[in-house]
Amino acid sequence: MADKPRRPRAETPKGFRDYFGAEVTERKAMLDRIAGVYHRYGFDPLETSAVETVEALGKFLPDVDRPNEGVFAWEEEGDWLALRYDLTAPLARVAAQYRNDLPSPYRRYAMGPVWRNEKPGPGRFRQFYQCDADTVGSASVAADAEICAMLADALEEVGIPRGDYVVKVNNRKVLNGVMEVAGLAGDDKDAERGIVLRAIDKIDRLGPEGVRALLGEGRKDESGDFTRGAGLSAEQAEVVMGFTSARRDAGAATVARLRELVGGSVIGAEGVSELEAIAALLDAQGYGPDRIVLDPGVVRGLGYYTGPVYEAELTFQITDEKGRPRNFGSVAGGGRYDGLVKRFTGQDVPATGVSIGVDRLLAAIRAKGRVGGETAGPVVVTVMDRDRMADYMAMVGELRQAGIRAEVYLGNPKNFGNQLKYADKRQSPVAVIQGGDEAAKGTVILKDLILGAKIAESATLEEWKDRPAQVEVPRADLVAAVRKMLGQ
Amino acid sequence: MADKPRRPRAETPKGFRDYFGAEVTERKAMLDRIAGVYHRYGFDPLETSAVETVEALGKFLPDVDRPNEGVFAWEEEGDWLALRYDLTAPLARVAAQYRNDLPSPYRRYAMGPVWRNEKPGPGRFRQFYQCDADTVGSASVAADAEICAMLADALEEVGIPRGDYVVKVNNRKVLNGVMEVAGLAGDDKDAERGIVLRAIDKIDRLGPEGVRALLGEGRKDESGDFTRGAGLSAEQAEVVMGFTSARRDAGAATVARLRELVGGSVIGAEGVSELEAIAALLDAQGYGPDRIVLDPGVVRGLGYYTGPVYEAELTFQITDEKGRPRNFGSVAGGGRYDGLVKRFTGQDVPATGVSIGVDRLLAAIRAKGRVGGETAGPVVVTVMDRDRMADYMAMVGELRQAGIRAEVYLGNPKNFGNQLKYADKRQSPVAVIQGGDEAAKGTVILKDLILGAKIAESATLEEWKDRPAQVEVPRADLVAAVRKMLGQ
Repeated sequence: MADKPRRPRAETPKGFRDYFGAEVTERKAMLDRIAGVYHRYGFDPLETSAVETVEALGKFLPDVDRPNEGVFAWEEEGDWLALRYDLTAPLARVAAQYRNDLPSPYRRYAMGPVWRNEKPGPGRFRQFYQCDADTVGSASVAADAEICAMLADALEEVGIPRGDYVVKVNNRKVLNGVMEVAGLAGDDKDAERGIVLRAIDKIDRLGPEGVRALLGEGRKDESGDFTRGAGLSAEQAEVVMGFTSARRDAGAATVARLRELVGGSVIGAEGVSELEAIAALLDAQGYGPDRIVLDPGVVRGLGYYTGPVYEAELTFQITDEKGRPRNFGSVAGGGRYDGLVKRFTGQDVPATGVSIGVDRLLAAIRAKGRVGGETAGPVVVTVMDRDRMADYMAMVGELRQAGIRAEVYLGNPKNFGNQLKYADKRQSPVAVIQGGDEAAKGTVILKDLILGAKIAESATLEEWKDRPAQVEVPRADLVAAVRKMLGQ
Repeated sequence: MADKPRRPRAETPKGFRDYFGAEVTERKAMLDRIAGVYHRYGFDPLETSAVETVEALGKFLPDVDRPNEGVFAWEEEGDWLALRYDLTAPLARVAAQYRNDLPSPYRRYAMGPVWRNEKPGPGRFRQFYQCDADTVGSASVAADAEICAMLADALEEVGIPRGDYVVKVNNRKVLNGVMEVAGLAGDDKDAERGIVLRAIDKIDRLGPEGVRALLGEGRKDESGDFTRGAGLSAEQAEVVMGFTSARRDAGAATVARLRELVGGSVIGAEGVSELEAIAALLDAQGYGPDRIVLDPGVVRGLGYYTGPVYEAELTFQITDEKGRPRNFGSVAGGGRYDGLVKRFTGQDVPATGVSIGVDRLLAAIRAKGRVGGETAGPVVVTVMDRDRMADYMAMVGELRQAGIRAEVYLGNPKNFGNQLKYADKRQSPVAVIQGGDEAAKGTVILKDLILGAKIAESATLEEWKDRPAQVEVPRADLVAAVRKMLGQ
């Protein structure tokens, strides 16, 4: 036995998974709909390769220190290559590489898998889909407004009804202005500003008191763990808290309150004006606060945002794993960034864009019962007599010609029960049966498997008695009779 | 200057490339159509991850010796991981891993990129698409016949007309029978059999004389290079040559001739009977020799085929890079294989499947002018007055609502010439212009850019005089007037 080689394990690597049938078609249907909206907005598709040089990808994953940390990387003839960890870094590379050929501004969308070399966990995979749209080369806030409107359209297009989502817009410059007023300007206050940003980002979860604690000395959570705060004075904290409590979706009133809060800060005033301009542009297109609102609470974690930031939140409730109702939450986010293309060319290239969390949005439309994609099981033609396979294949041929999804049973036909079990596993709506008797008579038997399942479940058979789960029809009527049974 | 860090190079790694706009949508449109056919045949989509363990992938790339040769592989916490090099190896892993859950037989299709760590060359990339359909768990030749029929349907569906393609079917067992008759059975004749197979595979290129030379001592090509032959005697070579010259697409006559050639070989006779059965099944579905033919010349390079092999060839002519007409050639191929799942489970699992060369087929339908996908450029609304951006965005909003692809110019609007250059680069059909005068009058100007380009090219302007390339219409008629200009 020592000579016998060990068999390879039939397993995906840790943190990877396979997607079967409806999982593939439903995601595809959703992405196709989103692509339709992006197309209408004039965005062009871009598909970069999965592999980039480590040098081109750079070090932009949040919360990592080493260049290769968080990515899958390997050396190839002296070059370090890596799988892309998002779709923004490759876009920056493309914008630099083809800067003389691409239209400017360049609107592009991209959909595809990205890879993260992180510890896998429940529901957390090392390969997952992203779906991005960005405008590169436009400094105008009209580009940001356009992305917000497009995001709203995309959500409605995939089946999130108006009222069940809101796109929230803020501006990093407003935040920076507020920090300036609170005395947190200057390079030496970088750590404090970080703590303040993260605290504001948590307001939905911690409430005002939790945020105030984090602005001051710090906060002890329910488990007793202590998070160090920003160490702001009561006065400083007051400025920041005033900002977080500025009313949402109050349009002009929100803008006026923000202008007051940023006081004499130049950058802050600029941010407020930009927000105002975005609101005006969206109003002109009919995107009111039922769809898009100004929300000073939106921060967005990533360090590289420099202006407007935005986020799509689903506002309907779902039941969490413990049976408690909770808001579905964020499914997309983005904002304006500058540094990414500059890395390559040395020149400032303004850009703004959004990334949709594909798996979360898909989960949301599943929760809403709005998934698309063709997922019906096939009509199964069973094999009663293996010598007449040509007859059975002629039957599926006719059904397919008529546009009906159909297959002949290709396993060992000996055990007929296995054939019906197979049809069941395939979620087949109709089984077609033709034994020797039927062949001699020139008929086929159609079994309505959906009705059959209902009858099997039903306590009283009375209501089904006029709807036989099985019919015998002339062979020539096969297609018409299957159509009828499918309710087409 | 010593402190200044070198800027990263904005380049894809060697052998990788980016796909822009129509390149993406045209491929997608083609794959969507193929998926529609596969779906109708009862095949389910499967999407495995790009990353597999090296152990699971195994060593099945043709012409390589080391396990990792030809693949991109790296070590991750003691495990060797690699990018998949085809879609068959992951299918074998899935079929083993989920053998208790999947329907049996399992029909699946898969479409996506694969990666090869090979020397890149002109038109040869290290990431490219494959599009596969396989049936796992059926020993019946009906499964092979079905894949051939599906392949023919798929080609017609993407725009290859009947008569411009042929699906050619052969059987490895017939070949093995012929070799047996030629005295080439037995493990010690493995090298000779390999040379014979490769020689037969080259008959279209080398002609009967070239093949005969390779069956004997060897062949010197035009450049003077010598390829060693199989060293067959004249009698042995005669048997093989008789096989290669068996008439194609002659149906029953071809079968009879093959049966004669394999003589007393049991495996050979089995192969001929299988071919006969496949032909009968296809006939019953109406797939005659105008679509699918028996062709003893089909060998298929891969070592792992064990029974029927098939290949789709496009028969129309294109002009090669030197201006000479030549047949387009093969765009898809496949066959029956057994060993792949057995590697994992120790049990024989019969399987058969086809792989379409996505890039080649796309090139073919481009040559036929039959590409699909929405690739029209957007209507461009220009910006004459940057303070009225809200007005321009309202215009694109209305156009998009009406389903018309449209965008507002988001670059610096100062130079109007640049805006028209941008519209040109975007292949925009219509530019919308509203300066202060038009705004005051409540009108917009529409510029027909397609007609404009024609007029610019035309020697005589006479024929265009009644079709002005520019019209002024009431602002309220914007959508209707654009529609009219687009010919909708």
